[in-house]
Amino acid sequence: MFKNTLYFDVSDTPKIEELWNKISVEKTSKAVGYYNLPAEGEKLLLDIGVWGAGIRNVENIVVIGVGGSSLGTKALYSMLYHEKKASTPNLYFLENIDSVTIKKTLKSIKLDNSLFLLVSKSGTTLDTISIAKIVMVHFGIFPGDKYFGKYFAVVTDSGSALNKFANEYGLKSFFIPKNVGGRFSVLSATGVVPLTLCGIDTAKLLQGAAECQDDFFSRKISDTLIKKSLAYTVKSGQNINVLFSYSDIFRDFNAWYVQLWAESLGKKKGDERVGLTPVGLIGAIDQHSFLQLIIDGPKDKSVTFIRVENMTEDMPIPDISLKFLEKTNLKKGIGAGQLLNEQAIATMKSVLNEGAITDEIVLAKADAFHAGYLIYYFELLTSLCGLALEINAYNQPGVEVGKKILLDKLGK
Amino acid sequence: MFKNTLYFDVSDTPKIEELWNKISVEKTSKAVGYYNLPAEGEKLLLDIGVWGAGIRNVENIVVIGVGGSSLGTKALYSMLYHEKKASTPNLYFLENIDSVTIKKTLKSIKLDNSLFLLVSKSGTTLDTISIAKIVMVHFGIFPGDKYFGKYFAVVTDSGSALNKFANEYGLKSFFIPKNVGGRFSVLSATGVVPLTLCGIDTAKLLQGAAECQDDFFSRKISDTLIKKSLAYTVKSGQNINVLFSYSDIFRDFNAWYVQLWAESLGKKKGDERVGLTPVGLIGAIDQHSFLQLIIDGPKDKSVTFIRVENMTEDMPIPDISLKFLEKTNLKKGIGAGQLLNEQAIATMKSVLNEGAITDEIVLAKADAFHAGYLIYYFELLTSLCGLALEINAYNQPGVEVGKKILLDKLGK
Repeated sequence: MFKNTLYFDVSDTPKIEELWNKISVEKTSKAVGYYNLPAEGEKLLLDIGVWGAGIRNVENIVVIGVGGSSLGTKALYSMLYHEKKASTPNLYFLENIDSVTIKKTLKSIKLDNSLFLLVSKSGTTLDTISIAKIVMVHFGIFPGDKYFGKYFAVVTDSGSALNKFANEYGLKSFFIPKNVGGRFSVLSATGVVPLTLCGIDTAKLLQGAAECQDDFFSRKISDTLIKKSLAYTVKSGQNINVLFSYSDIFRDFNAWYVQLWAESLGKKKGDERVGLTPVGLIGAIDQHSFLQLIIDGPKDKSVTFIRVENMTEDMPIPDISLKFLEKTNLKKGIGAGQLLNEQAIATMKSVLNEGAITDEIVLAKADAFHAGYLIYYFELLTSLCGLALEINAYNQPGVEVGKKILLDKLGK
Repeated sequence: MFKNTLYFDVSDTPKIEELWNKISVEKTSKAVGYYNLPAEGEKLLLDIGVWGAGIRNVENIVVIGVGGSSLGTKALYSMLYHEKKASTPNLYFLENIDSVTIKKTLKSIKLDNSLFLLVSKSGTTLDTISIAKIVMVHFGIFPGDKYFGKYFAVVTDSGSALNKFANEYGLKSFFIPKNVGGRFSVLSATGVVPLTLCGIDTAKLLQGAAECQDDFFSRKISDTLIKKSLAYTVKSGQNINVLFSYSDIFRDFNAWYVQLWAESLGKKKGDERVGLTPVGLIGAIDQHSFLQLIIDGPKDKSVTFIRVENMTEDMPIPDISLKFLEKTNLKKGIGAGQLLNEQAIATMKSVLNEGAITDEIVLAKADAFHAGYLIYYFELLTSLCGLALEINAYNQPGVEVGKKILLDKLGK
């Protein structure tokens, strides 16, 4: 189903137990809320179902949000798009205050067939609210208009400015639990609302996450994850962590991982600066790009390979021979998915030859269940690395300075 | 027009002169051919024009190629898409042996309105030829068929197996000069053929590159580039190089840069392993992702900011106030493009505060001329870093091991 094989070992048993205790305490403390999101899914799905039954049929769901408000949703949508029925709404994202992209997206949708979801945990993300204003003016629909609540809904913290705005103008609010940070929030309303509305099997998604939770907290898979976090954090010298994901469907998952990793694990610790640097690669494409650096460059990189054992609707590579190009001929009956898997395996061997900290994650299928498992798995790994580094993985103090400089200059 | 401001200085004049001499020799030697591509553009454009006049009208150009055969073309197409006329063909890419993407692309095109370009310098890239076979079977068109040459053309080395294949079956071949490596080849037929066919102003593109060449080899901008390369390579400790590009149009440019940098600059040098690690970020999105790590994490990163002074068709941020969300209100008359620029400036200030090696590239416009300048500029910088590190920036010996493992297992 979901298999993570480590091609290295960490035998420091006391440290393993220490981390196990720390994460157990953190989960129980309720200070960090994402651990328990799978259990809250049922109530959320019911809420979406009841509300969804009362809204008009739309063809497009448009998420207006950035960072933790969009990356996880995008990751899952791309990973599971091949499972989506053509009759369910499409998902669009307005993430960047970039006129080129905004115009392109607004050109391809109409107000009547769209629902806009404003997603912002704090409720006052400058980019998000600015884009929302552009959308309002573009379509000529404003707060106070009779049908405003038919076109907009919000996902935010209970009691946030955005929640108050929604209440004032009759918009539906979905809530992100207070103790769940933006980048850990994809299995909350942040991701579950838009994905459910687009027909993704979010019940299965949450089941997958719940199974990962069980497997971890029953200690079935905890040592694997703890060993990984120790390999990355305890003076390994390999503090660039490469995620080499085989299939285009993981491109947005990589971007989600990069945020999760970089924003959680890059922190000041007194006078010290700690941090692990994430790099997301797509196989087989990036064998023709970044791989050379991993193989021959400095030994400062660990590499995790992700591959899907059974690709959906695999297609055969035709057993035809092209004159002068015979050296590319493969054995009969090999499918594209199999070739992709074998590329991953061959590349992994060549990376192992060079002594990098290497491990391999194999998903039996690329479906909602496995996607949920994968998401929760990487969240656990991130928490463990934070605990091993003895930093707060859940804040982001460094990004406030730039925001202040900007608002001092442009704010009213 | 194109302005690169360094917020650091390197005063080691002898080293600057040494690098200047080395790159001058490399250019003159003709061993490295990309330096002179702008001058060869006129002949190439003529060739494309003559051939293009004789081909049928198509709606889609499909590049089948990977790495150096696709990344540069994709970078320029994305950067210049907003300039493209709706009546010119669209460009598609088949880069990955991934059934999900291949199916999706093949579904959206028809044989009759498409032209397939097989791009491979060596001519025998396994992924590329396997995808070509899938395309042939999908559309039921094969070498030897009467109209085969109407649907396929190739870009490759003169005399390669793919060139021989093309000659055998009456396909047009465009050539990449022998002394131009794949990842340095975007200003050769690799990029210029598909982009010209899609109506991109490749004459202006090559003019921009030519201007960069002149500016550099007349020493107008050489010291800036040499200082950058010295800052990155001479024991700076900041050997992760972040490119923070403000606008979604640079997403594929970042991917091109990552290949160029990683594959050129990650090399074994006797027993030593050297290499600079590239990271591509998009502003303002990644302010909500990777930025935290740059600000508070280890001081192992340099940061280059790229922004466009005058964004095409900028749109105003509406001067409306939303109840409870007033703290996001901006001064009247600010456009999305201006906000994006100010975000870049504010973020750069916050990065400078933390003492990272920082510089800023400002393009007056995102047009073909500036895109050509930018491409050539980064190629020069890569060559300089290679010379400073005393490695061969133009080979990629590390990726052969995995290819051999794969072919031993799956090859006929």
